[in-house]
Amino acid sequence: MYKLKFTLIFCLFLVSVNVQSQTDEQVIKDIYKKALTNGKSYAWLNHLSNQIGGRLSGSLNAEKAVEYTKEELEKLGLNKVWLQPVMVPKWVRGIKEYAFIESESGKTTTVNICALGGSVATPALGLKANVIEVKNFEDLEALGKAEIEGKIVFYNRSMQADLILTFEAYGGCVNQRYMGAVEAAKYGAVGVIVRSMNLRMDDLPHTGSMTYNDLPNEQRIPSAAISTNDAELLSTMLQLDPAVNFYFKQNCRQLKDVQSYNVIGEITGSEFPDEYMIVGGHLDSWDLGDGAHDDGAGVVQSMDVLRLLKESGIKPKRSIRVVLFMNEENGLRGGKKYAELAKQKGENHVFALESDSGGFTPRGFSFDCNDATFNQVLSWQPLFKPYLIHYFEKGGSGADVGPLKTKSNVLAGLRPDSQRYFDHHHASNDTFDAVNKRELELGAATMTALVYLFDKYGVNPINKDTQIKD
Amino acid sequence: MYKLKFTLIFCLFLVSVNVQSQTDEQVIKDIYKKALTNGKSYAWLNHLSNQIGGRLSGSLNAEKAVEYTKEELEKLGLNKVWLQPVMVPKWVRGIKEYAFIESESGKTTTVNICALGGSVATPALGLKANVIEVKNFEDLEALGKAEIEGKIVFYNRSMQADLILTFEAYGGCVNQRYMGAVEAAKYGAVGVIVRSMNLRMDDLPHTGSMTYNDLPNEQRIPSAAISTNDAELLSTMLQLDPAVNFYFKQNCRQLKDVQSYNVIGEITGSEFPDEYMIVGGHLDSWDLGDGAHDDGAGVVQSMDVLRLLKESGIKPKRSIRVVLFMNEENGLRGGKKYAELAKQKGENHVFALESDSGGFTPRGFSFDCNDATFNQVLSWQPLFKPYLIHYFEKGGSGADVGPLKTKSNVLAGLRPDSQRYFDHHHASNDTFDAVNKRELELGAATMTALVYLFDKYGVNPINKDTQIKD
Repeated sequence: MYKLKFTLIFCLFLVSVNVQSQTDEQVIKDIYKKALTNGKSYAWLNHLSNQIGGRLSGSLNAEKAVEYTKEELEKLGLNKVWLQPVMVPKWVRGIKEYAFIESESGKTTTVNICALGGSVATPALGLKANVIEVKNFEDLEALGKAEIEGKIVFYNRSMQADLILTFEAYGGCVNQRYMGAVEAAKYGAVGVIVRSMNLRMDDLPHTGSMTYNDLPNEQRIPSAAISTNDAELLSTMLQLDPAVNFYFKQNCRQLKDVQSYNVIGEITGSEFPDEYMIVGGHLDSWDLGDGAHDDGAGVVQSMDVLRLLKESGIKPKRSIRVVLFMNEENGLRGGKKYAELAKQKGENHVFALESDSGGFTPRGFSFDCNDATFNQVLSWQPLFKPYLIHYFEKGGSGADVGPLKTKSNVLAGLRPDSQRYFDHHHASNDTFDAVNKRELELGAATMTALVYLFDKYGVNPINKDTQIKD
Repeated sequence: MYKLKFTLIFCLFLVSVNVQSQTDEQVIKDIYKKALTNGKSYAWLNHLSNQIGGRLSGSLNAEKAVEYTKEELEKLGLNKVWLQPVMVPKWVRGIKEYAFIESESGKTTTVNICALGGSVATPALGLKANVIEVKNFEDLEALGKAEIEGKIVFYNRSMQADLILTFEAYGGCVNQRYMGAVEAAKYGAVGVIVRSMNLRMDDLPHTGSMTYNDLPNEQRIPSAAISTNDAELLSTMLQLDPAVNFYFKQNCRQLKDVQSYNVIGEITGSEFPDEYMIVGGHLDSWDLGDGAHDDGAGVVQSMDVLRLLKESGIKPKRSIRVVLFMNEENGLRGGKKYAELAKQKGENHVFALESDSGGFTPRGFSFDCNDATFNQVLSWQPLFKPYLIHYFEKGGSGADVGPLKTKSNVLAGLRPDSQRYFDHHHASNDTFDAVNKRELELGAATMTALVYLFDKYGVNPINKDTQIKD
C-alpha cells in the first residue's frame, strides 16, 4: 500500500516536473490534443441539453443543472466544489402563445410568436388591435399618441447584415426588444410585437429579456417576438392595408423570486492562492430550446478548462475557479452575487474569462484590460497561431464577469465564429445538434491555453512574477 | 432614347471614376457589403441543390447544372459565356447497397455502406467472406497472402482528431480509400470495406473515388465505405470473434465515357486582355447528397465573384474568367481539358483561384506561388483584417486549377473553416440546409477582394504594372 502511494506520488511529481520543463508551445499543443482526443465538454453538453433541457432561472431544470454540474465537478478532483446561494426571478411562459393577422374581410393568417421573457400576459381571451409599424423610438415620437394609442406597436428594424461581427448587429437592434414596451406604453400602445433578433429568414420566434422599468402594473403591456418571415408578412400586409388587425394570446407570468445557486469549483493556487482567476459561463438558458449554444457550451467549456489543466499536469500558481453563473438571461443575479461576495471577502480577482457567445469555432478573445496587459497578450499571438486563433481585440468580456471589473484586473470573453449564432439564439433550435464537437472542444482548449499563460506570467507585467521567462 | 442612352453611359462612367478614386479599403468594404446584402450565391445554390440535386459526372443532373449555370452567367452581362466540351467517365451506383455482419451463430446486424466511386459490383447475389482488419498497407504486408486471401480487407484507420486543419487528417487517411483495392488485391482479398473519412461518429457512409490502376478486370474487387459507427461495431465484433462474416451487395458499374462541359464566363480585360485570371469550383458532385458544400458552394461563389466585380463598377485590367469545372470528383477531366486548351491557345494564365473546401466561414487562402508574390499577398493582410480573414499560407490550391501551374503564376485556394467539412463530405448530408447564407457570402466576397487586388497590382511584383500605387 505504501509502495503504491509512493509510486503515485512519484508519478505526479514526474508529470509536474515534465510540464515545468516544457515550452509554452509544447504545453499548449498538449492541451489542444487532450481537448480534441479526450475532451469531456461534448458529453457534458449532451447531458445538459438532452437529459435536462432548457434551464430557465427558477425552473426545475435549472436546479437539475445545478445538481448535475456540481456532481460532475466533484468527480474532477478539484480542491473545492460548492454552491453559492442566490435568489433568482421566476418567470413562466405558460401555454404556447398563439397569434394571427386578420384582414378587414375577417380572413386570418396564423403567425409564429413567443412571449418575451418578463412580459405580462394578454387578457385571457387574447388581445386584438390595429398595428403600427416602426423602426425605432424616434418613429414613435414622430407618430405621437394620436397614431399609437390603442394600437399594437410592431418594431421591425432588421439586424444589419453587412456587419461582420453579428454581435454588433444584435447590439444595434436589441433595444427594440428590451425597451420596446416601456417606450410604446408612453404613447398608449396596448401591446408590442418585435421582429426576432435573427439575421436569417425563418419561422422561429426568438425570445429574450425585456423590462418595464418602474412602470406601474396597469401600464405594463404584453410583448412578444415574431419570426423574421412573419415580420415580413405582417409588414407587407400593413402596406397593402394599414387597417389589418393583429391578435395574440399569451399567459406568461412573473412569480416570486426563488432560491438558486452559482456552481463553483476551485483548484487552489500553489504560489498565490489569494489571487483568483475565474472562467465561466451561465447555467440558465431560455426555455424554447435546450440552451446548447446559449450557454450550455460556455458551461461545459469552462468545466473542461479545469479538467484540462489537471489532466495536463499543470499546477497553477493562482487559484483557478470555474464559476457556472445562474440567471444571466433575465436578471444577472448570479454574476452580481458572485462579485458582491468576492468584494465582501476581499478576494482579489485578477482575471475573469467568460464563454457566452456560442460553441462555434473559436476565433480569439476580446479583452477589457490596460494597455500593458493587452500588449502582453499580443506577445502570445504566435502561440495561438497553429490553432487558427487570430482575434485579439480590446472590447467587452461577458455579462456575468462584468461586475468583477477593477482598474487593474483582466476581463476577457471567448470570441467564436459568430455567423450562425443568431440563427439559434433564444429560439427553439438552440439545440445540441447545432453544436459541433470539435468546434466546442477547440473553444475549451483555447480558453485553457489563455488561462495557463495568464497564470504563468501574471496579469500585470510590471510585477516580478510576470516576467516572461521562456 | 438617345438621352436615356447618354444618361446610362454617363452613370457607368461615374461608377467607374468613383471606383478608381476609391481606396482599396473602400472598394473591399463595398464588395463585402454587396455580398452580404445583395448576394446571389445562396439563391443559385438553392437551385443547384434543391431543383437539380447531386451532379455526378455523366448524369442527367450534371447536364442540367451545365445548362442552368450557363443561363445564369448569361444574365450577368459578361463579355463571353461558353461551354467547353470534355469527355467524362460515367459511373452509376445502381440500387442502394446492402450489407450486414454475420456472427458464427448466423445472427446478422445490418450496417450502413455505400460503394466507392469507380468500384465494380459484387456478384449479383452479393459477397460474403471473413474479414481482416488493418490500419494501413504495412499491416497487409505483415499479414501476407496467407492471412488475407479469400477475405474482405477492412481498412479502419481513423482521421487524426488532433490536427487542426481537418484536410490534413483527410490526407493522412484517404490512401485507404483510393488505393485500398489495388493493395488488397495483391494479397488475394475478395473485397474492401473502408472506414468513412469522417471525424464524427455517425451512421452515414461517405463515398469518394478509388482506382484499380491497370489491374485486369478479373482482379478488380468491389470496394465500399462503411459509416464510422458501423466501423467501430465491426471492429468490436472482430475482436470478440475473428470468424464473423461480412456480406455486401452493390451493383454499381462503369459505363462508357460521355460528353460533358466546363462552363466558362469572361469579363475581358481593359488593359491586358491576354492575361487571364480565373476563379472556379467544380460543377460535378457525388450522388448521395446534393453536393451543396462539395462543390456547389465553390461554383456559386465563383459565379458571384464576376457578378460582384461588375456590380461594384470594377473594370478589371486583365481578363477575369469564372470556370465551372466538370468531373473533379472522379477523373479531373474538366481541369485537365481546360489547361490543355489554354496551353494550345497560348493563353497566359497568371492567376487561378479555386473554392473547393466547403461553404463555411472563410479564414483565408493558401497560395502556390513564388516568394515575391507571397510577400505581396502578406502586405495585403491589413485589408482583410476587418473581415476576420487572417490565414495566408503557402500550400496547395485546388485540384482543378493544379494543371495550370507555371513557374511564375499564382494558384490559390480559398480556405474556409474546416471543422464541419468532413461531417458532410461525400455523404448524404452534404445538403443545402448545412450551408449558412452569410458564411457562403463571406467566402464570395473574400474571393472577390483577392481577385480585385491581384488584378489591380498584378501577379509578379517586378513588372512595371505591379507596383503598389496606393
